[in-house]
Amino acid sequence: MPRYSLLVEYEGTCFLGWQAQKLTSTIPVRRGQEVRQGVQSVLEAAVFAFCGENIKTYAAGRTDSGVHAIGQIVHLDLQKEWPCAKVQGALNFHLSRFRVSVREVKCVADAFHARFDALSRTYLYRLYDQRARLALHENRVWRVPVKLNMHNMQKAAYALCGEHDFTTFRDRECQSPSPIRCLNKIEMERIEGGLFSAEIHIHVQARSFLHKQVRSMIGSLVEVGRGKWKVEDIDKALQARDRTACGPVAPPDGLYLMAVEYPQ
Amino acid sequence: MPRYSLLVEYEGTCFLGWQAQKLTSTIPVRRGQEVRQGVQSVLEAAVFAFCGENIKTYAAGRTDSGVHAIGQIVHLDLQKEWPCAKVQGALNFHLSRFRVSVREVKCVADAFHARFDALSRTYLYRLYDQRARLALHENRVWRVPVKLNMHNMQKAAYALCGEHDFTTFRDRECQSPSPIRCLNKIEMERIEGGLFSAEIHIHVQARSFLHKQVRSMIGSLVEVGRGKWKVEDIDKALQARDRTACGPVAPPDGLYLMAVEYPQ
Repeated sequence: MPRYSLLVEYEGTCFLGWQAQKLTSTIPVRRGQEVRQGVQSVLEAAVFAFCGENIKTYAAGRTDSGVHAIGQIVHLDLQKEWPCAKVQGALNFHLSRFRVSVREVKCVADAFHARFDALSRTYLYRLYDQRARLALHENRVWRVPVKLNMHNMQKAAYALCGEHDFTTFRDRECQSPSPIRCLNKIEMERIEGGLFSAEIHIHVQARSFLHKQVRSMIGSLVEVGRGKWKVEDIDKALQARDRTACGPVAPPDGLYLMAVEYPQ
Repeated sequence: MPRYSLLVEYEGTCFLGWQAQKLTSTIPVRRGQEVRQGVQSVLEAAVFAFCGENIKTYAAGRTDSGVHAIGQIVHLDLQKEWPCAKVQGALNFHLSRFRVSVREVKCVADAFHARFDALSRTYLYRLYDQRARLALHENRVWRVPVKLNMHNMQKAAYALCGEHDFTTFRDRECQSPSPIRCLNKIEMERIEGGLFSAEIHIHVQARSFLHKQVRSMIGSLVEVGRGKWKVEDIDKALQARDRTACGPVAPPDGLYLMAVEYPQ
């Protein structure tokens, strides 16, 4: 059975996250848009509409509700061999009602696994630190209404680099057997002018992340940026290995799965 | 009466353009959002909600329906003198249902006029030249499903710089008494990676523009980029001084009023 790898982009605000969810009556509704489905179920429905196959798709990153993706990688198997351009065109046609797009389709080896073969994931977190409301970038960044001290945030972030027990920075419902992860990088830059008014972009990379790890780290780093936490408080929180030592979890709006890296 | 100057950002898709419009039954509805008003009327209603004054606002650029603004400048007079931060906070509070935000408020001289004092306006046009649909950037860029030759577009664009009769590139309903305008610059750059997949950003600046001039020029330049027009066809179209010589008008989605420049 031919295996395909898809590069997928989506606007997280329109979905319950990557994973397929059953329809329930307690589904959140944001900005008048009905958020009823996971990206996965929408994508699997598009595959069915295209070729009548009821298949399962596998993603590199199981993004939460509201988290965006620019470079999500998904793999799937089809019975029949199709030209990649045909698969891409057909899926995008059937996805046209949704804010999800297949940017690329490649044929891959039968053994390729989007999730287990990934060497690392790169995320971007966008912070906007002004009082004024957002118009164009609403739901796309986290607005913190006070100026943040990025220099202190970066200093504090160094404590998170490398291999650590990230118990403090993982969701209580995280199902990973181990709280140990290795953070390859966490880098910040201030972006001003052009399409962005006053933003801090934080680039984070690791082989893999715990549940809500990025948002937990960012939320705590913002406490440093605001001056509520001292630089060394991040390291103390990390060493505590205690979820209650974590700062407020950052909202999903500012988080983007940018890229997934594979061997060669 | 104190005069205030406002720096205003808005998502054009949500409005009928800058100018206040009467409610009619033929109002376009886009992506499920009811587009019923001009930014102006929403802003004036916010002023009324704030201080009970029924005033008129004046903008530097009267953007069309669907055109975005990052740096629109608006002036207005209030009876009472308020701290600028108070005006900004109150307006943003009353604008919270809309995709419009007041990014800055300044007290200005009584004689200041947002429209007539402007030395120039700078616009950005975002083109995305790939077949794949847009997810995150839908309504924010113009998707042209073939790779564009930006080099040829830039060469062709040089013909438009400087002072010309832009009859070809203005809307038939343009009410300006003269079709003569002076284009200060039209510059292109390719933006790839990060939040942008594959875009061409076109920066255009002039003292002022004719109605739909930017979109008419961009639409014609895209014909060059596609290879349907030759580089020299832009100059020929300009010289024709004939609206029928214009290419298809580019959609508003990709257009942003970025900045308005004033003396000193």
